[in-house]
Amino acid sequence: MSSSRAVARLSRVAGHLAASSKPISRPSSSSSSSATAKMTATTRKHKVAIIGSGNWGSAIAKILAENTTQHGDVFESEVRMWVFEEDYQLPSSHPSYSPAEHSSPRKLSELVNQLHENVKYLPGVPLPPNLVADPSIVSAVKDASLLIFNVPHQFVSKICDQIDGKILPYARAISCIKGVDVSPEGISLFSDVIGRKLGIYCGALSGANIATEVALEKFSETTIAYDPPGTLTPVPEELPVINHDLWKKLFHRPYFHVSMIHDVAGTSLGGALKNVVALAAGFVDGMGWGDNAKAAVMRVGILEMRKFGLMFFDSCKSETFTEESCGVADLITSCAGGRNHRCAKLSVEQKRPIEEIEGEVLNGQKLQGTLTAKEVNEFLKARGKENDFPLMTVVYKILMGEANVEDIPSVI
Amino acid sequence: MSSSRAVARLSRVAGHLAASSKPISRPSSSSSSSATAKMTATTRKHKVAIIGSGNWGSAIAKILAENTTQHGDVFESEVRMWVFEEDYQLPSSHPSYSPAEHSSPRKLSELVNQLHENVKYLPGVPLPPNLVADPSIVSAVKDASLLIFNVPHQFVSKICDQIDGKILPYARAISCIKGVDVSPEGISLFSDVIGRKLGIYCGALSGANIATEVALEKFSETTIAYDPPGTLTPVPEELPVINHDLWKKLFHRPYFHVSMIHDVAGTSLGGALKNVVALAAGFVDGMGWGDNAKAAVMRVGILEMRKFGLMFFDSCKSETFTEESCGVADLITSCAGGRNHRCAKLSVEQKRPIEEIEGEVLNGQKLQGTLTAKEVNEFLKARGKENDFPLMTVVYKILMGEANVEDIPSVI
Repeated sequence: MSSSRAVARLSRVAGHLAASSKPISRPSSSSSSSATAKMTATTRKHKVAIIGSGNWGSAIAKILAENTTQHGDVFESEVRMWVFEEDYQLPSSHPSYSPAEHSSPRKLSELVNQLHENVKYLPGVPLPPNLVADPSIVSAVKDASLLIFNVPHQFVSKICDQIDGKILPYARAISCIKGVDVSPEGISLFSDVIGRKLGIYCGALSGANIATEVALEKFSETTIAYDPPGTLTPVPEELPVINHDLWKKLFHRPYFHVSMIHDVAGTSLGGALKNVVALAAGFVDGMGWGDNAKAAVMRVGILEMRKFGLMFFDSCKSETFTEESCGVADLITSCAGGRNHRCAKLSVEQKRPIEEIEGEVLNGQKLQGTLTAKEVNEFLKARGKENDFPLMTVVYKILMGEANVEDIPSVI
Repeated sequence: MSSSRAVARLSRVAGHLAASSKPISRPSSSSSSSATAKMTATTRKHKVAIIGSGNWGSAIAKILAENTTQHGDVFESEVRMWVFEEDYQLPSSHPSYSPAEHSSPRKLSELVNQLHENVKYLPGVPLPPNLVADPSIVSAVKDASLLIFNVPHQFVSKICDQIDGKILPYARAISCIKGVDVSPEGISLFSDVIGRKLGIYCGALSGANIATEVALEKFSETTIAYDPPGTLTPVPEELPVINHDLWKKLFHRPYFHVSMIHDVAGTSLGGALKNVVALAAGFVDGMGWGDNAKAAVMRVGILEMRKFGLMFFDSCKSETFTEESCGVADLITSCAGGRNHRCAKLSVEQKRPIEEIEGEVLNGQKLQGTLTAKEVNEFLKARGKENDFPLMTVVYKILMGEANVEDIPSVI
């Protein structure tokens, strides 16, 4: 085993070890009929908490709250959503604005609970009344057996510290945080960081999911990867079994179709590496090379993403990249007009550095793709594997001024 | 073996049987080193003929003629291109127009040879001078050991009749004709029709290849499938071995990258079935459902295309659809703005039948996708397999007025 693979593996294994070694007595079958048979014997229901309330967090929270109502046999209706508390001035143009109540800034959590709308991060989208905003993260996760994480990358570690020891020991989690944390030393999946820090198991959700489209109930698909080891603190028998069927019940909507798989690493990698490919597609579009060239770059991009997964993660499956929403479909969406694609295209068209473009277009935010391209390059360079990933490497070199966009065809 | 599979197979097997059963003495290895060693012992070169001179035919002919010059060790420089003779009036705006020569219509073949440009079907693109237009199909294919077919579907059979018995018995062919011929009785690959009618073997070329982009040397990729049986009339030993390396030499350009595979059926099917998926993507775009929904339709489309191939052709490979230019990349290009996508989108936006739209947009031509959707449905219905292909079936039903675009999410 190469050292890089060892590092990547270590992180995953650690997540599994931080749990009781007591064997699980519940049946492992995830077939619909056996799960239903089991559930009818249960006397308690799962309580759901979502940690994070941004644009994507609120869109997912809406889905969760819709489904806990619909599937009242297995879920408590109330879903708690942790809101990072801040003051917010409701604009007077808001349909629910009242001078008596909203003339001065109010707590965001209060506004969410009063108006059933995340007026700051998902304005205009009605949220179900059983979704309750909670400014206390400890209170939000109390008694929740199902935890959904949806916070910015940089807060994952600190948030886990805040709730460590304050969650149910048999809780199970899903991370909706896009991407992975890449450094020269190795790759961390956010689901593994969460699992390791909290001593529970955490799966991952990723797909072709532009948050606002999902919030507006425009049809989309997603991939949820969940593959817990057999060494976790068992879920009490009074609770419905937590398996693929249960997660699907919690996330699947008529407008949000869920595919359940086991490959957590592949699901997480897709969301990170597609941004590098989207830069390449943007460069090509900026050159005006046409649809043939763009499709070629995307095809080669999928294959390099898969190669990366298979080289550095034992558990990765080829089809996660070529067949799932978190792979090929997310790449298609990102290359159609995502921010990485857009900025790269403008950079070529205007013959200006991409940093200048991102400063203007993203209002000071950083492009995920340029960061990932650099991180991935450092990771590959440390292992002598740059030449195995010519497309990702040329994107990095173009960003660094060491190669030209004209070099792309020669490497694919 | 199901009857449908049997029919599909029959057509392929027939193509192989129509050849000598004498075993082939040449080595079957296609490795670069052994091929080179073999070639140095040869005393003759391959002569190349292209049958067809439309937009795509001329673009491919340009590539062939560039490569016969570059690889003069294995190919005769002159490439003959059969031109369906017609009179053409060169516009006075053409840079080479001379009142003395071009004041009245001239034979198209003469203009091509004089101006080194297919002034009617690929105007503005210089063709290599070693590409010779020939209005006689029999003369064009004479002594050619490598035949490239690039004619409209409906002429394949008649053209084969015209040259049957007039080609070298050991000739090998590649069909660049997109798609397949589907009827309730079965599926014919054009490569098989050609092979069977002429008693030779014919492979297939398909990919994300918009002809004008290729002609303008905008970068693209293609897939060539070539998998001859061991029962053909042997190629004389004086000629270089005809294997994957040789075909790659003939087709690969810095702006046109070739991937060689063995799956002829998958390569041919991709070019036909993607048009049905492109209609679905166009419907979704017409509804304004966004990039998530479109990516979902494309993802499910690739999987249904693959399922179709694997169900009805023993030789089909999964990765032809998910990894090759003729699969996923061609689908991406077609859904980005091909004519099927465009007409379907306009049809939904303007709430008018697609037949009206195609009449206006295509100047009386027929959309390939709507024909294929109907043919595929008849084929599937005859085998009771409609429900196994819900996306292709709903596209057919929408075209027939038996379903609505709103039904698409429920079937994927």
